[in-house]
Amino acid sequence: MLEEPNNWGRWGAGDERGALNLLTPETVVAAAGCVREGRALSLSLPIRGATSSPAPTTVPHLRGRPLPQHFMSVDGGDYAAGTRPIGAGLKMADDALVVTPHGTTTHMDALCHMWSGDELYNGHPAGRVRSYGAGRCGIDKAGPVVARGVLFDVPRLRGVERLDAADRVGVDDLEAAGVEVRPGDVAVVRTGWPLAWRDGGPEAYWAGQPGLSADAGRWLAGRDVSVVASDNAAIGGLNEHQLADEGLDDDLHMIFLWRHGIHLAEMLWLEELSETGRTDFLFVAAPLRIEGGTASPINPLAVL
Amino acid sequence: MLEEPNNWGRWGAGDERGALNLLTPETVVAAAGCVREGRALSLSLPIRGATSSPAPTTVPHLRGRPLPQHFMSVDGGDYAAGTRPIGAGLKMADDALVVTPHGTTTHMDALCHMWSGDELYNGHPAGRVRSYGAGRCGIDKAGPVVARGVLFDVPRLRGVERLDAADRVGVDDLEAAGVEVRPGDVAVVRTGWPLAWRDGGPEAYWAGQPGLSADAGRWLAGRDVSVVASDNAAIGGLNEHQLADEGLDDDLHMIFLWRHGIHLAEMLWLEELSETGRTDFLFVAAPLRIEGGTASPINPLAVL
Amino acid sequence: MLEEPNNWGRWGAGDERGALNLLTPETVVAAAGCVREGRALSLSLPIRGATSSPAPTTVPHLRGRPLPQHFMSVDGGDYAAGTRPIGAGLKMADDALVVTPHGTTTHMDALCHMWSGDELYNGHPAGRVRSYGAGRCGIDKAGPVVARGVLFDVPRLRGVERLDAADRVGVDDLEAAGVEVRPGDVAVVRTGWPLAWRDGGPEAYWAGQPGLSADAGRWLAGRDVSVVASDNAAIGGLNEHQLADEGLDDDLHMIFLWRHGIHLAEMLWLEELSETGRTDFLFVAAPLRIEGGTASPINPLAVL
Amino acid sequence: MLEEPNNWGRWGAGDERGALNLLTPETVVAAAGCVREGRALSLSLPIRGATSSPAPTTVPHLRGRPLPQHFMSVDGGDYAAGTRPIGAGLKMADDALVVTPHGTTTHMDALCHMWSGDELYNGHPAGRVRSYGAGRCGIDKAGPVVARGVLFDVPRLRGVERLDAADRVGVDDLEAAGVEVRPGDVAVVRTGWPLAWRDGGPEAYWAGQPGLSADAGRWLAGRDVSVVASDNAAIGGLNEHQLADEGLDDDLHMIFLWRHGIHLAEMLWLEELSETGRTDFLFVAAPLRIEGGTASPINPLAVL
Repeated sequence: MLEEPNNWGRWGAGDERGALNLLTPETVVAAAGCVREGRALSLSLPIRGATSSPAPTTVPHLRGRPLPQHFMSVDGGDYAAGTRPIGAGLKMADDALVVTPHGTTTHMDALCHMWSGDELYNGHPAGRVRSYGAGRCGIDKAGPVVARGVLFDVPRLRGVERLDAADRVGVDDLEAAGVEVRPGDVAVVRTGWPLAWRDGGPEAYWAGQPGLSADAGRWLAGRDVSVVASDNAAIGGLNEHQLADEGLDDDLHMIFLWRHGIHLAEMLWLEELSETGRTDFLFVAAPLRIEGGTASPINPLAVL
Repeated sequence: MLEEPNNWGRWGAGDERGALNLLTPETVVAAAGCVREGRALSLSLPIRGATSSPAPTTVPHLRGRPLPQHFMSVDGGDYAAGTRPIGAGLKMADDALVVTPHGTTTHMDALCHMWSGDELYNGHPAGRVRSYGAGRCGIDKAGPVVARGVLFDVPRLRGVERLDAADRVGVDDLEAAGVEVRPGDVAVVRTGWPLAWRDGGPEAYWAGQPGLSADAGRWLAGRDVSVVASDNAAIGGLNEHQLADEGLDDDLHMIFLWRHGIHLAEMLWLEELSETGRTDFLFVAAPLRIEGGTASPINPLAVL
Repeated sequence: MLEEPNNWGRWGAGDERGALNLLTPETVVAAAGCVREGRALSLSLPIRGATSSPAPTTVPHLRGRPLPQHFMSVDGGDYAAGTRPIGAGLKMADDALVVTPHGTTTHMDALCHMWSGDELYNGHPAGRVRSYGAGRCGIDKAGPVVARGVLFDVPRLRGVERLDAADRVGVDDLEAAGVEVRPGDVAVVRTGWPLAWRDGGPEAYWAGQPGLSADAGRWLAGRDVSVVASDNAAIGGLNEHQLADEGLDDDLHMIFLWRHGIHLAEMLWLEELSETGRTDFLFVAAPLRIEGGTASPINPLAVL
Repeated sequence: MLEEPNNWGRWGAGDERGALNLLTPETVVAAAGCVREGRALSLSLPIRGATSSPAPTTVPHLRGRPLPQHFMSVDGGDYAAGTRPIGAGLKMADDALVVTPHGTTTHMDALCHMWSGDELYNGHPAGRVRSYGAGRCGIDKAGPVVARGVLFDVPRLRGVERLDAADRVGVDDLEAAGVEVRPGDVAVVRTGWPLAWRDGGPEAYWAGQPGLSADAGRWLAGRDVSVVASDNAAIGGLNEHQLADEGLDDDLHMIFLWRHGIHLAEMLWLEELSETGRTDFLFVAAPLRIEGGTASPINPLAVL
């Protein structure tokens, strides 16, 4: 168990992977061993883009963020209107996507996403994170997550459908789950908060958000998880201004990303996973290799 | 073995998943059993975006396609220049991505990507593929790929570093690999063509592309693979105009996507996988849930 | 005075310019003659883009539309953080803009923007308006607007600061202005509606919008104006669902764009112009030559 | 005539407009007086966007820059394929544009576009130019250009169709034009270089570019022009690497933008203007009010 932040060696091979270095051949093989039923669940929200309709506004997102835009550069409508097929009769549909992952869709944060002072996680200079991409600790440095996932289904443990905006997940909640956390595990924390949008629309969702308390964060970090994933937008809770109330010491992004190099996956959809009752599974997330990216949209999988 | 195109039931539950319906609890569990060494390899090219530099042009892509653009909406440079931290001292980097996956980066095609006549795969009306997204057979219908991957390392089998632009992979090449193909497997076909870019730059890469012959395509389709993945740009070969020479019957996209509902993953990077000498492994690809998308950028994994 | 829709000749040279064909050497010279004070006023709203802040949401726009995004690909922050200058010491800032003009910023509609049935204005086939751009009646066909502008300052005429959401501008309002309308003139209709946003925020702005009545529209069309410009979002009024209440015959877009080929400029900022008290001036709008565009963001000028 | 760079007052009202402050009521009225024939010419290249075709690559641009992308979010093809009209039968086409103006299309540079050291033009701190836009000297500070334009038609004066890549425009060329330059004028310098693309394609265009010599730049700056506009990509010449050869003292962007606050308009299309034989005219350019923009795409007009 770690008492100190993980320093994987400063500026050497792999030191930008942070806690993903906890993934070893042994943990990967063990994770694969969690596949017992042969079911693969997607843990992501849909990416609902559009430009001439308000469709994208119907999916949970933080207020004021630029929503995904999805464009077709050629489609079936064009052929219906007379576009000639290619060559011997081929028709095709092509598209494009504009996406700002933070706050708008299921994504994984890079270690460069947040810091304090002049240094990123592990002493990397923050000044290397520039307009043309993060020269240090970008999402391209993370590599794939193939690990054992463990579910902390807090609403189920508390006997509620979903947490309230003001609820914070405590150490007692995590301990109540009764799951053994092993180094390299992905801690998947369910709050049920997307149901607030489903039931009450944007205003309900924007009223605040439940999330991990700082103590719970330290509890997880101390157990050497490689990734913390949740269905809320910021791992920690948010107030009605969509901001964290914690100070620097207790801020969940600071605890995980900055001090411990633990990647964060946010805005997951965990309802089907919750229904399975399974608490351990193979968790796979493969962030796009966006060079210098501060995050990647992901479609995380739980393979049961 | 299928003699006829896969019709998974017309317009019913799951009929837009095509050959991914071949993935069953048994195949998923068996695929997980391929994880013996505990190594996870990324099979994707980097997404190299930029706007004020020609960096994106340095990654393999088809000529004339809009290349990825990557933007930082706030970064370390801003703080160096005086931007005030948030609250108690938090700093953050955020970004955005503009991506047109076909022809520019590692991606998986949706079943709506290509067709002939007025119907998509399995009789879905092509007229449902419109400017605001594919109402049928979009990438959001595919779901995740968790399957056994089998590698056909054609250059290695032929004793060359990479195939030439005019080379076509025949049934004899596939049979020479000596791998047993099972229903639901992902056929990963290496041509080595990205090395043409590495060695000779864009002009060498654009001179044409090696790829599967129609007979090899039918051979794979007849063995009920769920996905065909390759490191070339179009599964089949391309001429110097970056077009397929085959007619409608023999076009590889028609054979796979349209007739058999077999998804395609293109522009993979298979060099490290080739070096491992492994021919079977757990293959995972989780396309983003882009509603109505014709494709998704992916970071496919081979877990050995 | 026209009784019938303007048919400038079907499918011949210039027939996609619609009423802009009313601009003749004589009208252009006369318009230039309106420049007496030598002041040039911008009549546009700012384009406020951003991705990591909600700044774009602070400018008047229709609900649910994708707001402008503005990105810097290199900036002063990068140099502050250590980016090396170019060559002998040059530093540069570059940017990119993503913009969907309709409903989000000051823009001019192309004649292809709206129609009914299968034909655009002047009989052009609507099927030529496809995913890769409008093959007919795109904004690139409009050409520049250099014309006499005449202001109908309706709130001032009615003695109010701004119209209410339910107000419709009638023929009597237009006649009360006492301005002589000549063929080719740009009719600039002030409603004051952007002040609703300034005073009451988005919810006030979205409560509906004042606009021209159908009769007033026909009155203007009958006087052969080349363009109708207004500070509301849709020339006609809108209800609380941001939709027009008129039927097909009375819809203002149908009257102007479709039947008469009169271009529309929307979401202007007319407050300074109103303060000048001038009712005629040189009006200049130069839509970007976006091939096949349905609109262009513009910065229209009143030169007094 | 100015001997020193224009310092319009440091950090006060209007000091971010640079030489556009030379536009006075008198110059504007005089400029309008240049309208004698009543013809309005567009001086811009088309913005040819597309995503599934290489169309954008067919318009002059600098190598390796992200080309415009144009998307339709709903179009005539959709209705041909069955999309239901709105309300009583309205159909509409909407679009979106992604544009990086520098090097890809006709645009006007903001004063923040280039500098040396830590200060922009007129002492504004370069550190205010950040990822979320230029806090100083952005294109939104420029305001509209309504001025007398004077054409220096260098190829015509030299009796050639177009200049060669290595040609530099000297003071003698400018003097040979025999045009009187008055304070506030827009100097329009024709090189004919877009014809290199028309005749020889991209490779010919990228071989270098003709442009103003430093002495010619100083000659113009000394005559208090408000804007320098040209049909080349960088006002000054470029070598085959698309870079300027001049040192800091002689760099044309430094002379104009940085020392004198003279805005630059680049990549114009001047062929029709040249054919008119007119050397003075009303020049109008209205950059979009992009807050913090480093440039704006423009459609500059010559009204004859």
